[in-house]
Amino acid sequence: MFEAAELDLKLSKHEFDEQAPSVREALLEGQAQLRESPEFSVAIVIAGAEGAGKGETVNTLLAWMDARGIQSHAMGSPSSEDTERPDFYRYWRRLPAKGQIAIFFGSWYTFPVVERSFGRIDEPHFDRKLSRIVDFERMLAAENVLLLKLWLHITKKQQRRRFEKLSKDPDTAWRVTPQDWEYHETYEPFVEASAHALRRTSTGLNPWEIIPARDRRYRELTVATKLLERLDKRLEQSPRPQPQPQPLPKPAAANVINALDLSPKLAKKTYEKKLSTYQARVGRLARRMHAAGGSAVIVFEGCDAAGKGGCIRRVITTLDSRFYRVIPIAAPTDEEKARPYLWRFWRHVPRRGHIAIFDRSWYGRVLVERIEGLCAPADWQRAYGEINAFEDQLIDAGTLVFKFWLAITKEEQLRRFEEREATGFKRYKITDEDWRNRERWPAYEAAACEMVEQTSTEIAPWHLVSAEDKYWARVEVLKTISDGLEKHFGPDEDPKSKHKKRKNK
Amino acid sequence: MFEAAELDLKLSKHEFDEQAPSVREALLEGQAQLRESPEFSVAIVIAGAEGAGKGETVNTLLAWMDARGIQSHAMGSPSSEDTERPDFYRYWRRLPAKGQIAIFFGSWYTFPVVERSFGRIDEPHFDRKLSRIVDFERMLAAENVLLLKLWLHITKKQQRRRFEKLSKDPDTAWRVTPQDWEYHETYEPFVEASAHALRRTSTGLNPWEIIPARDRRYRELTVATKLLERLDKRLEQSPRPQPQPQPLPKPAAANVINALDLSPKLAKKTYEKKLSTYQARVGRLARRMHAAGGSAVIVFEGCDAAGKGGCIRRVITTLDSRFYRVIPIAAPTDEEKARPYLWRFWRHVPRRGHIAIFDRSWYGRVLVERIEGLCAPADWQRAYGEINAFEDQLIDAGTLVFKFWLAITKEEQLRRFEEREATGFKRYKITDEDWRNRERWPAYEAAACEMVEQTSTEIAPWHLVSAEDKYWARVEVLKTISDGLEKHFGPDEDPKSKHKKRKNK
Repeated sequence: MFEAAELDLKLSKHEFDEQAPSVREALLEGQAQLRESPEFSVAIVIAGAEGAGKGETVNTLLAWMDARGIQSHAMGSPSSEDTERPDFYRYWRRLPAKGQIAIFFGSWYTFPVVERSFGRIDEPHFDRKLSRIVDFERMLAAENVLLLKLWLHITKKQQRRRFEKLSKDPDTAWRVTPQDWEYHETYEPFVEASAHALRRTSTGLNPWEIIPARDRRYRELTVATKLLERLDKRLEQSPRPQPQPQPLPKPAAANVINALDLSPKLAKKTYEKKLSTYQARVGRLARRMHAAGGSAVIVFEGCDAAGKGGCIRRVITTLDSRFYRVIPIAAPTDEEKARPYLWRFWRHVPRRGHIAIFDRSWYGRVLVERIEGLCAPADWQRAYGEINAFEDQLIDAGTLVFKFWLAITKEEQLRRFEEREATGFKRYKITDEDWRNRERWPAYEAAACEMVEQTSTEIAPWHLVSAEDKYWARVEVLKTISDGLEKHFGPDEDPKSKHKKRKNK
Repeated sequence: MFEAAELDLKLSKHEFDEQAPSVREALLEGQAQLRESPEFSVAIVIAGAEGAGKGETVNTLLAWMDARGIQSHAMGSPSSEDTERPDFYRYWRRLPAKGQIAIFFGSWYTFPVVERSFGRIDEPHFDRKLSRIVDFERMLAAENVLLLKLWLHITKKQQRRRFEKLSKDPDTAWRVTPQDWEYHETYEPFVEASAHALRRTSTGLNPWEIIPARDRRYRELTVATKLLERLDKRLEQSPRPQPQPQPLPKPAAANVINALDLSPKLAKKTYEKKLSTYQARVGRLARRMHAAGGSAVIVFEGCDAAGKGGCIRRVITTLDSRFYRVIPIAAPTDEEKARPYLWRFWRHVPRRGHIAIFDRSWYGRVLVERIEGLCAPADWQRAYGEINAFEDQLIDAGTLVFKFWLAITKEEQLRRFEEREATGFKRYKITDEDWRNRERWPAYEAAACEMVEQTSTEIAPWHLVSAEDKYWARVEVLKTISDGLEKHFGPDEDPKSKHKKRKNK
């Protein structure tokens, strides 16, 4: 893989001085064009062995480009806010907005490659991490992030010489740390793991560029040229056409949603008793989850007036307000619109011990955005896989994922709309949009069925809840959460025995 | 202060059930109105001794209100990202957007009051912290944040009884921790420090409300009623009028900016020598700063084409790209516009060991926003004090603040504009706006003079740099940064002695 890069390519000062200014000028032009019509963003991954000149290269790029449109992210040790969330959280947080360039100096490759080269993970585990990277990068490409992956290559001998040279000069000796010499000792396994990673993750959309890195001038001009080529090519592409109206999907005669039995009901008395039993249980289990450092994401979807808010209220009253957050999903802000779709949900991923409750969620992509034509068919079609990958990462990081679809009939919805419009403090909930959405009921039903089919996974299943009777739905939701927490954190124990309870009365 | 609150006020269940629904309905109406025309945001501080029912009160508010427009922030132990920045960073980060309500459960009061009640700070230090709070809250009021400060009061005896009662019930025993009993022991100094804090920080705009808290029903209905009163009163206020065009300021005949000697120049050779000397020095000192856990903020202001970008480039090439960030300030995003003015700068405050370089800055408020009439006169007038307070906090947290004003003549600006339009890769820098701003030169000069007068403090002075000669300006900037770093982190030592250097040649 690195044979070509081991040819010791260099540039004389004269050659460099001759070529550099025009490359730089073209880069600045490209950057200006990118900022003027921000159709996409650029992410640059700089990788390679220690001593390959990654830092110098980043510095040169930053010095050459317009500082107003480029940022470098040195991904050193993660902060406590990062470590308490899935690995990719810190990269998601730093994804550039359209029109901007971000350099990742240290990236999503670093940790897997280092782990593998020290033999801390085996090849199958390594490959799993790499295919997650491939998925991530495919998503980036689809979401208008131009990704440039650069591997700066030096041989072991070149690395040693470089360290020795730096150590000799008192101005640069500080740059060679004992850890660098350790890395030098493990050069071979590092390069082997890297070669494996490059091979597995070099795709048509997101290829790796391997750059002979010993000679500073050659390296930097090559990096700049590669960036220029990719940038220019992408700029030449015409902007994506606006999504065209698509035929609305029609629900199958028999489907998971209309097959749901909507008849179950609870009498008020039974409801009140069950509610308080399950609320107490969820409260205790959530405390146990918190103590164990677990976390949870609870998603509520369903048509308007299905009772999401009411369920959420019954859940949160059992929880410690320090450890949960309700995240209502409405129109994205412009900072959100400028980044890949899931960015606005990643920013709300809960820390350890915390619960995030989503009132509507990332499933908007395959529901409202699909039906209202707010994204292209290709966008919502790939969303299923992206969503599954997202939830997989949450679960991998120890976050439980609960997904509730609250189902009611169209008649019940009408009844609730009318009731809300008539009565006092619920009035705030009805908008014109609610009435509009109602007209597209069959399309929403079809989209919801497909959503369940595509994203009800064994690790994060959908819970379809009959919500025709609110009492029934609330108890079902609490029971499901309680069961899920028990499964992970052990059976609930009611500190009051029945006997005691009776005695207290 | 708390005498009235020690009257043991309560509500019967009947009274509560009678009054609560209408208060809740009115609150929801108010919240809906707030969301529909988001003219302001609401921040609620819940304070009081342990056992006063703060958590329960927060839970009730959350359950009563529409979860889509309210968030609670439990300010427990700060994360590492918070502790590496000024104390107020974590509160700034969580300020609600217009239309939203945030409950601070634990707030900017907690730490000072606890520190004082344990005798870890003396009264003058305590008062200093409190007057910082007064300033912060005055800013909130001016920036359309309706602040409600609630002190839930219980007596020491009530606290003991409450802890005992909770401890007896197996369902609630977990809520009383050993730390709570410790707090019980220090009830008197805690209440004394709190009374002092309340007295010092209860202002006309942001008064404290003291609420007898022993009886849950009384407490919660009173909190809800207070919130409702303040919310309704604020909703009745008509929206602030759009800022009216103001007469442009005229510069004094003799002023700090036109008094600056713009004649100094450096010959190319001298420049190159000095540049590399100071760059090396700044590089070494920045490493030392990083190692010592210091941080720095460097602000560049000046008219268009004054050479900010060029200076920034000369500074960053000496720095390790992992530890600095260039923050270009342009139009705010909608998330930024929905929050107090300084929010968009607070979010970029550097962590320990890091440097943030601002290409334009918070001074835009008193320059472009003032001159172009983008804010009301009252807004830019109060900005001086707010900016000084902001920089004071940075410095207090160990961040060095460098502020550069690059000065050129109007003729030189024209020459540079024309040169840029003619030559290749600098073309990207000229916009129509640049030409427009140029027409208002005297107004900008007057505003800059006033800015320097008002914000050149002994802790964060302005450095007025003659930038008519770019070489001179760049060396001056590097020299100033180098001197500032030396002052704080000790004199620079060039690892290469002159003798050695000569020998190497």
